[in-house]
Amino acid sequence: MKKLISGLHQFQTSYFSTHHALFEELARGQNPRVLFITCSDSRIDPNLITQAQVGELFVIRNAGNMIPPFGATNGGEGAAVEYAIQALDIEQIIVCGHSNCGAMKGLLKLSKLEEDMPLVYDWLKQAEATRRLIKDNYPDLESSELLELTVAENVLTQIENLRTYPVIHSRLHQGRLHLHAWVYNIESGEVREYDPTRHGFVDPDGFVEASMQGCTLSQSPSVRLLGLEPESASSTDKTMTYNRTSNHDSWLSPEQRQRIYRGSASQ
Amino acid sequence: MKKLISGLHQFQTSYFSTHHALFEELARGQNPRVLFITCSDSRIDPNLITQAQVGELFVIRNAGNMIPPFGATNGGEGAAVEYAIQALDIEQIIVCGHSNCGAMKGLLKLSKLEEDMPLVYDWLKQAEATRRLIKDNYPDLESSELLELTVAENVLTQIENLRTYPVIHSRLHQGRLHLHAWVYNIESGEVREYDPTRHGFVDPDGFVEASMQGCTLSQSPSVRLLGLEPESASSTDKTMTYNRTSNHDSWLSPEQRQRIYRGSASQ
Amino acid sequence: MKKLISGLHQFQTSYFSTHHALFEELARGQNPRVLFITCSDSRIDPNLITQAQVGELFVIRNAGNMIPPFGATNGGEGAAVEYAIQALDIEQIIVCGHSNCGAMKGLLKLSKLEEDMPLVYDWLKQAEATRRLIKDNYPDLESSELLELTVAENVLTQIENLRTYPVIHSRLHQGRLHLHAWVYNIESGEVREYDPTRHGFVDPDGFVEASMQGCTLSQSPSVRLLGLEPESASSTDKTMTYNRTSNHDSWLSPEQRQRIYRGSASQ
Amino acid sequence: MKKLISGLHQFQTSYFSTHHALFEELARGQNPRVLFITCSDSRIDPNLITQAQVGELFVIRNAGNMIPPFGATNGGEGAAVEYAIQALDIEQIIVCGHSNCGAMKGLLKLSKLEEDMPLVYDWLKQAEATRRLIKDNYPDLESSELLELTVAENVLTQIENLRTYPVIHSRLHQGRLHLHAWVYNIESGEVREYDPTRHGFVDPDGFVEASMQGCTLSQSPSVRLLGLEPESASSTDKTMTYNRTSNHDSWLSPEQRQRIYRGSASQ
Repeated sequence: MKKLISGLHQFQTSYFSTHHALFEELARGQNPRVLFITCSDSRIDPNLITQAQVGELFVIRNAGNMIPPFGATNGGEGAAVEYAIQALDIEQIIVCGHSNCGAMKGLLKLSKLEEDMPLVYDWLKQAEATRRLIKDNYPDLESSELLELTVAENVLTQIENLRTYPVIHSRLHQGRLHLHAWVYNIESGEVREYDPTRHGFVDPDGFVEASMQGCTLSQSPSVRLLGLEPESASSTDKTMTYNRTSNHDSWLSPEQRQRIYRGSASQ
Repeated sequence: MKKLISGLHQFQTSYFSTHHALFEELARGQNPRVLFITCSDSRIDPNLITQAQVGELFVIRNAGNMIPPFGATNGGEGAAVEYAIQALDIEQIIVCGHSNCGAMKGLLKLSKLEEDMPLVYDWLKQAEATRRLIKDNYPDLESSELLELTVAENVLTQIENLRTYPVIHSRLHQGRLHLHAWVYNIESGEVREYDPTRHGFVDPDGFVEASMQGCTLSQSPSVRLLGLEPESASSTDKTMTYNRTSNHDSWLSPEQRQRIYRGSASQ
Repeated sequence: MKKLISGLHQFQTSYFSTHHALFEELARGQNPRVLFITCSDSRIDPNLITQAQVGELFVIRNAGNMIPPFGATNGGEGAAVEYAIQALDIEQIIVCGHSNCGAMKGLLKLSKLEEDMPLVYDWLKQAEATRRLIKDNYPDLESSELLELTVAENVLTQIENLRTYPVIHSRLHQGRLHLHAWVYNIESGEVREYDPTRHGFVDPDGFVEASMQGCTLSQSPSVRLLGLEPESASSTDKTMTYNRTSNHDSWLSPEQRQRIYRGSASQ
Repeated sequence: MKKLISGLHQFQTSYFSTHHALFEELARGQNPRVLFITCSDSRIDPNLITQAQVGELFVIRNAGNMIPPFGATNGGEGAAVEYAIQALDIEQIIVCGHSNCGAMKGLLKLSKLEEDMPLVYDWLKQAEATRRLIKDNYPDLESSELLELTVAENVLTQIENLRTYPVIHSRLHQGRLHLHAWVYNIESGEVREYDPTRHGFVDPDGFVEASMQGCTLSQSPSVRLLGLEPESASSTDKTMTYNRTSNHDSWLSPEQRQRIYRGSASQ
């Protein structure tokens, strides 16, 4: 605590004193353009990783960056989402999961939590759609890969859940709202965004344009409409990987992207 | 009741006696291939309008053909959905709304119901995503058109809700499940299915192939990927209508389809 | 799906085209006289087995034809019941169970369902009154007979549950509402209705008159008013059975009826 | 979004590249010492105002920095609290409200929200303890001062709520957990912490020592142990104020502190 409290003074004498104008303006009201939903994990600092200034991100943080379906819970998640869209007219929502997530680890051994952490247990049951998908489809994956995949699938689950909220349903209808699925890799410091057209988590630059046009999840059928079959899709992926100099450009392995591909195939 | 009870005997002596083999087989177990979700309305007979034989449709019926998001309610809807997918391995789900729906009429004047029909009121609040979308986007539509549109949007809402169920989320992941949005017009006896590529409710023949490949809702971005803009989209619609001999082929008016188009634009 | 979709056209060209007047009238509104509550099971077609015309039956269907007690759940069941009575002034309610019911099979091995089908598990816990009655009173029944009995007891449980709904409680008080417990036998195509005066499921003809006069479960005290004691009741049963040439006339065996008697005695 | 995405790269090339060692260590696991509960408001950046490094703060953010009492809700708040204490052994919890809070503004005109933002309305009803205290005790305060006070009282309410969580209740009993009530003033960039011995929000330095010895709200009985009576307490306040040269040292006015005193007296 001592360190934090001296930090408060350091903030005063450093950042605050050099940004008076900003804070005076903020004192009049907030006008964030992005709702950033992420995990409570201490290793994530939304403003740091996006280099966003104070006032730019409206932030919801809980264990596992989860937004249960509309009506499923009565916690603060739905209220903050509604406030962000309805009162602040935010048009961009980012759900940002992260590597090595403790909540997702818990989800993979849920039954063990019931006695020790009953509230965590009850909360994680809200991610049953993620748990079930992993359990049904990746029975023999070993744990590190399994966790990586669970983190990735879970942000996709939350995007589906967000779509059930009345205010989001209505704004999507107007084409005024865009949903983004991110995964932040603590070790590499990189963020990957889900690209529904390529069914993989890729460098956000990769489809920022499309994304700007509201190219959100659950668009997989476009693949078929474009005549892409799983094979050609993965070949696309390969090409993509091939054309790139570093596998950092595409966070998930081809196998994983292939799985994610199958995952979103009929969504 | 007398009529029904004599009907029981009539069934015995007519249909049953001529279908012994069928009923003997059914006595051994059911093996339906379709989950049919529709309204309790007496004017809908799923087996009649689809000419499906006994044993072909697993049926959920409630007021307004609604399936609230996963976890939002603890009624029979989720259980029947789970049983259909998990225990019966059903791979086709149809949500079938209908013209002149009393539940949707109620949704449009919800506050009036709170005192007289509190249970109906509470239930319809589960369709807030539909009500909100209509309220925000079609403020000055007159009532008959408004009801028609509410019915259509509501089946799309239910499709979104279905996607939040773990068992559905997982099967969609495998490409083993397909979701269909239907509207049955009592007066014309016709059914229209939502075609996400054309953003309108059209003759099911129109895209049955695509549909067979799991071409379900929320695929609108494919439109952009295909380079279709709202204009070109509506022109597509016009062409479509033009090529057809009867506007019966496309149940919603071009304006309505245009609205529906906007509606699903960024989903 | 292809078969269903061609069925839609077949319906158009056959039934619909020969019943124009009916559908025009129905387009103006519905006026069903019966609320028919049955299972989602594909082998049940309410309009077929009762030979009822479109527009005659307001239908609720879920897994196990269950209506939880008032206030116990917030699903669609209560709303549809309230709408049927309050908005449509329906005066006859039929709860129709059926032989070989998968939901009732599940109820008999409930614990096995918790992991695989959590939603089905939670839903069937709403039939605990049935499960407990069976468990306490028929410990050593073998399974086929046990299932048959569970199906029968469960419709009686649902009748009790219906009586807890305010709108039903009030209409019963006025003698304006009648509740009927049916069991449909898929193999024989027969329906049996519970006769509270004889404490057995019998041919509906058997007491349709009485039933018409409101002598339904809602008047079960009449049994006592008639001075029937278990002994006399069972002797009645014996006579009754003696007089009958076919056990078809009374679907349950004397022992079963005797059990049902004990089963419902405490209700 | 474009700005954020370029920010991701800027983060890579700047902060991340200069802190490799830190991120490598963090990749192995998190070990935060503080649970920081604050508002979703975009103008708050916990790491910035405390100058805390990545990995130091486990963060919960929702509308109004609220943690409903144990059992009152089933959202993510309780789970994140339980995880922080049980799994991460965190011993310091800070609830940090802030000036000009939109959620608290909403709380002061709650009824107005019911139709427009039903989820926000339901959520804020969880702060009824704050609303009621303000309504009963400060009926004739004008709005700006009222909002300032509501913000301050609300963090005290949340501290009380935290004490109802089993894991917190138990750790407090062991003296292993300390609860801190902060208010961050956006305009001045200052933070004030509630000092239970002086019944006011003061410069955290003021009692950091005491706080280090566990003399926080969680030990409020210590107040009595120190022989402080309301009178002496308020006289303390007067002296304290007298001795001070700048009202910066004590964010709330003597009247306000006096009110806060009365406000928290019953806690």
